[in-house]
Amino acid sequence: MNISDRAKAMPASPIRKLLPYAIEARKRGIEIYSLNIGQPDIETPQSFWNAVHSYPAKVLAYGNSQGIPEYREWLVKYYRANNININSDEIIVTTGGSEAVMFAMLTVTDPGDNIIVFEPFYTNYNGYAVMTDIDLIPITTEPEQGYHLPPKDVIESKINERTKAIFICSPNNPTGTVLTKREIETIAEIAEKHNLFVISDEVYREFVYEGEHTSILHFPELLQRGIMVDSISKRFSSCGARIGAVITKNKAVMDSAVRMGQARLCPPTIEQYAAQSVLMQLSDDYFEKMVAEYKQRRDITYEELMKIPGLICKKPAGAFYIMAKLPIDNVEKFAKYLLTDFSIDGKTVMVAPGPGFYATDGLGHSEIRIAYVLESEKMRKAIKILAKAIEVYNGKQQT
Amino acid sequence: MNISDRAKAMPASPIRKLLPYAIEARKRGIEIYSLNIGQPDIETPQSFWNAVHSYPAKVLAYGNSQGIPEYREWLVKYYRANNININSDEIIVTTGGSEAVMFAMLTVTDPGDNIIVFEPFYTNYNGYAVMTDIDLIPITTEPEQGYHLPPKDVIESKINERTKAIFICSPNNPTGTVLTKREIETIAEIAEKHNLFVISDEVYREFVYEGEHTSILHFPELLQRGIMVDSISKRFSSCGARIGAVITKNKAVMDSAVRMGQARLCPPTIEQYAAQSVLMQLSDDYFEKMVAEYKQRRDITYEELMKIPGLICKKPAGAFYIMAKLPIDNVEKFAKYLLTDFSIDGKTVMVAPGPGFYATDGLGHSEIRIAYVLESEKMRKAIKILAKAIEVYNGKQQT
Repeated sequence: MNISDRAKAMPASPIRKLLPYAIEARKRGIEIYSLNIGQPDIETPQSFWNAVHSYPAKVLAYGNSQGIPEYREWLVKYYRANNININSDEIIVTTGGSEAVMFAMLTVTDPGDNIIVFEPFYTNYNGYAVMTDIDLIPITTEPEQGYHLPPKDVIESKINERTKAIFICSPNNPTGTVLTKREIETIAEIAEKHNLFVISDEVYREFVYEGEHTSILHFPELLQRGIMVDSISKRFSSCGARIGAVITKNKAVMDSAVRMGQARLCPPTIEQYAAQSVLMQLSDDYFEKMVAEYKQRRDITYEELMKIPGLICKKPAGAFYIMAKLPIDNVEKFAKYLLTDFSIDGKTVMVAPGPGFYATDGLGHSEIRIAYVLESEKMRKAIKILAKAIEVYNGKQQT
Repeated sequence: MNISDRAKAMPASPIRKLLPYAIEARKRGIEIYSLNIGQPDIETPQSFWNAVHSYPAKVLAYGNSQGIPEYREWLVKYYRANNININSDEIIVTTGGSEAVMFAMLTVTDPGDNIIVFEPFYTNYNGYAVMTDIDLIPITTEPEQGYHLPPKDVIESKINERTKAIFICSPNNPTGTVLTKREIETIAEIAEKHNLFVISDEVYREFVYEGEHTSILHFPELLQRGIMVDSISKRFSSCGARIGAVITKNKAVMDSAVRMGQARLCPPTIEQYAAQSVLMQLSDDYFEKMVAEYKQRRDITYEELMKIPGLICKKPAGAFYIMAKLPIDNVEKFAKYLLTDFSIDGKTVMVAPGPGFYATDGLGHSEIRIAYVLESEKMRKAIKILAKAIEVYNGKQQT
């Protein structure tokens, strides 16, 4: 007996596949700055922990398949504060943003259909495309353009009769790019013309350092076409909570997502209660402080990267990632080298190689994604180590 | 734009779709004995709550995609105590048994393939079949036979060239039937002859009142063909924790399941820690006490059911469900009637209608599933109310 074609096609996470080398390096006593994964070092809010530590039930019961009603009511208030007017029936709480991506894909596509994505893109969309038997049609964005969208006609030229949706992510993982209001208007025009859904991953909503975040649900013309994917993982530094959401005003989409939600019974109960507690007690300056901290990290990371000869990178406006094009041919080899053969004073860095963020073969071989999830001075040290590694690696290659 | 065919085909949970009527009934002040859903009233172990209440981290971080290594080591010990010899690489911790079902289906089937199931079966398999674009081929088991498997040739006659697996569940939800060693041997013989995988849902492993539980992993001939689906939801009365597992010695299956696991990042972190804590502190008599309690509930439920004229039911050996065939033509209507039009002293019962547990149209219209998840005297009262309701309902139908 054989496993399925889709099982064979499942990609290993490019972010996680270097892990065995990291484990080996740590065994040798090497300290690693982990810039490969979007795991913030910011403390999860005390209100979250207080709720967990005093969770009152005696029986840990199933919750509502659509999410605990009180939590959804608090989400309504949170979204309203972000100029997104929805009601609690237009939310399904999901098990992380991951499940939200899966539900969004399943509700709009059948096997063999496709969705337009802009590459580089968050690598796990690939995994869900394989699991849901659809194709992702990549449209390449360029480091030299700050990874902003290409012209309208380039996007339209990729749409075919099996295209069901355009998938955007802003602020973007992995590029940090924040789409402008005008860019989302263009997406809306294309969606209307070609009768497509727009799936929008907005998990980094608050992480904007210049300009402001635009949601698809700010556009009346996208209210029926829009499916928003969300998560508390980064916003409340609670990646292990596995609490996300699908938000849509399209009743047919929501009804079917809820039925999918019933099949998996419910998202985790305790963490919804804790997330609600965070929303109830959110201080006015919570996001302000968090954003100031990340902005400083970004600035220092960017400043240090700019010192590296031959590196190409535009300062990103949001999220907590920087894609940088290195003066290196094969970043997969280089990322492995960082873990297996390089260290300075017993320290090295772990980065995510670029190719995993592209669907087009041959792209990204000189790019890496850096998550600036460590405090500023650690980021500075880490990028200095990276700079030295590039120098030594390229020197070795020439000999 | 239209939603997908699979989104349209998603079934609403037959267990949950009566909920709106229950909410209305409660608004009218009616007390409802909820026998429709497998939500135990048993307290979640104190060791679980102690772990939650003292969870030590400051940052709620992503865990390992395959599950926290220490938790998996404790699972190895737990399985060993159940004569199942696996190592920690042969486990992937999942977000509930639900995700385990999805991973199992995805690893062995491509769209258009099929899996043999024995009906009545746990209704959510249907939802996952729709989401994974496969067919479930039902083989009917009979209330008169205690829902045991039909002869080998009946099973074999349903296998075709797109059949990839046989799906069993023992102790069974919804029937409570515990498959005999001989029955599983028959499944193994069929699987070997037709080169199929065997997916086995064993979440009710400990809930056996007569005889003993047989795991597919007790059979050497099933070690490579077997994919076990598991969950702590019932065992540790922690349905809202969303912690399950896929267990398999088939390396190709495990490797692809782990890659699917990477796409969704990780199962909930806190609950894995808490589940580990339960395993570490499990008292010798924990299961003994739990099983004694459920056995008493089953006996009283069965005793009361047997008093109902025209009802057909064999005493089930396991799980905490009884399927009963009522002297009623349309149990969907009757289950709704219980909530909208019937009560005794302000009390009524909620049951799960049979048709939702069948894939074959027209079956189950006289059957209901009762979950004996309330304490014995409540179960007795609930079944007495059910008995009276049948009498009144049938009397009304005749007038």
